[in-house]
Amino acid sequence: MAERLGPPLDEPVFDELAIIGIGLIGSSLARAARKTNAARRIVVADISPETLARAEALKLGDAFTADLAEAARNADCVVLCAPIGAYGAIGRTIGPALKPGAIVSDVGSVKGAVIAELEPILPAHARLVPAHPVAGTEQSGPDAGFATLFVNRWCILTPPSGTDAEAVRRVRALWEAIGANVEIMDAAHHDLVLAITSHVPHLIAYNIVGTAADLEDVTRSEVMKFSAGGFRDFTRIAASDPTMWRDVFLHNKEAVLEMLGRFTEDLTALQRMIRRGDGDGLFALFTRTRAIRLGIVAQGQDTAAPDFGRRGRDGEATEA
Amino acid sequence: MAERLGPPLDEPVFDELAIIGIGLIGSSLARAARKTNAARRIVVADISPETLARAEALKLGDAFTADLAEAARNADCVVLCAPIGAYGAIGRTIGPALKPGAIVSDVGSVKGAVIAELEPILPAHARLVPAHPVAGTEQSGPDAGFATLFVNRWCILTPPSGTDAEAVRRVRALWEAIGANVEIMDAAHHDLVLAITSHVPHLIAYNIVGTAADLEDVTRSEVMKFSAGGFRDFTRIAASDPTMWRDVFLHNKEAVLEMLGRFTEDLTALQRMIRRGDGDGLFALFTRTRAIRLGIVAQGQDTAAPDFGRRGRDGEATEA
Repeated sequence: MAERLGPPLDEPVFDELAIIGIGLIGSSLARAARKTNAARRIVVADISPETLARAEALKLGDAFTADLAEAARNADCVVLCAPIGAYGAIGRTIGPALKPGAIVSDVGSVKGAVIAELEPILPAHARLVPAHPVAGTEQSGPDAGFATLFVNRWCILTPPSGTDAEAVRRVRALWEAIGANVEIMDAAHHDLVLAITSHVPHLIAYNIVGTAADLEDVTRSEVMKFSAGGFRDFTRIAASDPTMWRDVFLHNKEAVLEMLGRFTEDLTALQRMIRRGDGDGLFALFTRTRAIRLGIVAQGQDTAAPDFGRRGRDGEATEA
Repeated sequence: MAERLGPPLDEPVFDELAIIGIGLIGSSLARAARKTNAARRIVVADISPETLARAEALKLGDAFTADLAEAARNADCVVLCAPIGAYGAIGRTIGPALKPGAIVSDVGSVKGAVIAELEPILPAHARLVPAHPVAGTEQSGPDAGFATLFVNRWCILTPPSGTDAEAVRRVRALWEAIGANVEIMDAAHHDLVLAITSHVPHLIAYNIVGTAADLEDVTRSEVMKFSAGGFRDFTRIAASDPTMWRDVFLHNKEAVLEMLGRFTEDLTALQRMIRRGDGDGLFALFTRTRAIRLGIVAQGQDTAAPDFGRRGRDGEATEA
C-alpha cells in the first residue's frame, strides 16, 4: 500500500482554511493541505500559547492566532480539530465571525452529538459539514503530525439532511486531495460503526492496562518485562490523548454502552467455555476471527508485515 | 534497541538438540541455535509430513524425522515446541527413548499444567526444565520463524524444586546464546503473570473481533474499512494460532479466570462512569495508563515509533 500524497492541485479547494486546534490531526491536516495545495492560505488557531508557538516554529500555516474569531473571520472553511468537549465554546466564539457561506467542518470521532451541539449555535448562513478522518497515532501535539497520515485512510462525512451539496463536495475534495477515501454516512450510523471499530477497542485497552497496573500479586515491573506476550499492543492504544478520549465517551454514550453490552455478553460466553473446558468452542471462535484480519490487510487498512513490522523499524529486517 | 544476534559460541551448549514441532517458535529456535552455534547438531521432528518437508527444504536442521522417539534418542536436550495439548502424547512417546541425563524443555505459554503432566511421564533419569520465551508474531509455521525473534525478549524458566542446577544452567545458556534475557520463576507465579500480560489480552482480542463479526447493524465491510480507528490492532492478535491458544486457555484456566474476573470488574466500573458521565474518572484512568506504555518502551520491550512504525514498512518514512 502506497503511503504517498498525490500531486498538488492546480487550483486550491479553499482560498482560506482555518484550523482550530493544531494537535496531531490539525497539524497533519495543515501539512497535507500545504503540500497538496488544497488551500491557498492556512490560518492556524489554538488557545494554548505554547502549542501555537510550536506550530509557528514548525511553519504549519500562514498566520497564527489565539483569537478563534479572528481565525474564522475570512475563512472559506473552518475545521475544528479540538476535543469534542470544546466544540460548544468554539462554536459560540466563531459563529458571529463567520462570513456568509463559510463551511464549518471538524475531525471529531463522534458525529451525532457534534451536530446537535453546533447546529443551533452556528449562524444560518454557515454550512455545517461534519467529518471524521479515521486515522491517527498514539502521539499528540503539533510535532506528532505528518502529511501522509490520511493517505489511504477513510474520512467519513455526516452532513445533516438538507446540507448544501456544494459544501459537501468541497469538503470531500479537501480530504480526497490529501489522500483519503471519502464515505458519506448518517451520523447515528457513524457513531454505531465507530463504537465497535474504535471506541470500545480503546475502552478495553485502557481498561486492561488499568487492571494490570493495579494488581498486587503481579508487579508493574513484571507487567512491563513480559508485555511482549500481547499486552504491549494494548498499551499503545491506551497511551492515546486522555482529553480527546474522555470526550468521545461522554459524547457517544449510547452507542458505546450498546456495543460494550454485546462485547460483555460474548466475553461471558467465552468465560463459560474456559470454565467448562470447551476446547471446540474456543477453537471455533479463534479460527473465525482470522478472516477479519485477512480482509483488513487485503483492503490496505493494515500492514501485512508480521508484528506490524515492528522489527523493521529496529534496524534489522525479518530474516530467514 | 538492537535486534541482532551476538557472535557464535566457541563451544556449543548442546551436542545434539532435538526440536519437536517446527512452527513459528521451533523454527526460530532452530535458526537462532544454528547461527549462534548453540548446538552442534539439530534434529527436527514434526508429526505433519508437510511441515517436516518444508523444514527440510528450509534446511532448518541436520536431520528430519516424523518419529519423535527417534528424534529424542541421542539428544542432550529435547525442546517441545508443539501445542501444550500434545505434550502428554509427546512425553509418552519420547520418554522411553531419552538417554540418561537428557534435558527435556519446552516453549509453552503455560507452565504449571505442563509440569504436572510431564513429570510423572518422563523417566527419572531425564531432567525437566520448562521454559517460556515471551516472543512471537501472529504468524504460524516453519516459514514464519526468524533467527532474531528472541533477541532482547524475556525467556522464563520454571524448574520444579529440586531440579538439577546444571540442567537449568545449560537451558539458560541456550536462551542467552540466542539473545534472550532469562528469568527464573515459580510455575504458579508465571501462570498468573502471563494470564495478565498475554492470555487475557488474547482472549479479549479474540472476543471483540468475534463481537464485531457478528453484528447485524454494522456490516463486516464497514468493520474492515474503518478498522484503523483501533480495532485493527486487535485483529492482529486475534489472528494467532487457534490450536496453540485453545490449549493455553484449557491449561491455564484458574489464572485466566482470576485475571478475567478483575478485568470484568474494572470494565463494569468504567461502564458506570460512562453511563453517569463521570469525565473526571475517565480522564484519571486514561492519564494513568500512559505511564505503563512509557515504561515498556524505555525497557526496550516495544518500539518508540508511533503506530508501531507501521508506516516505516510501507516505503515512506514518517515525515514532517
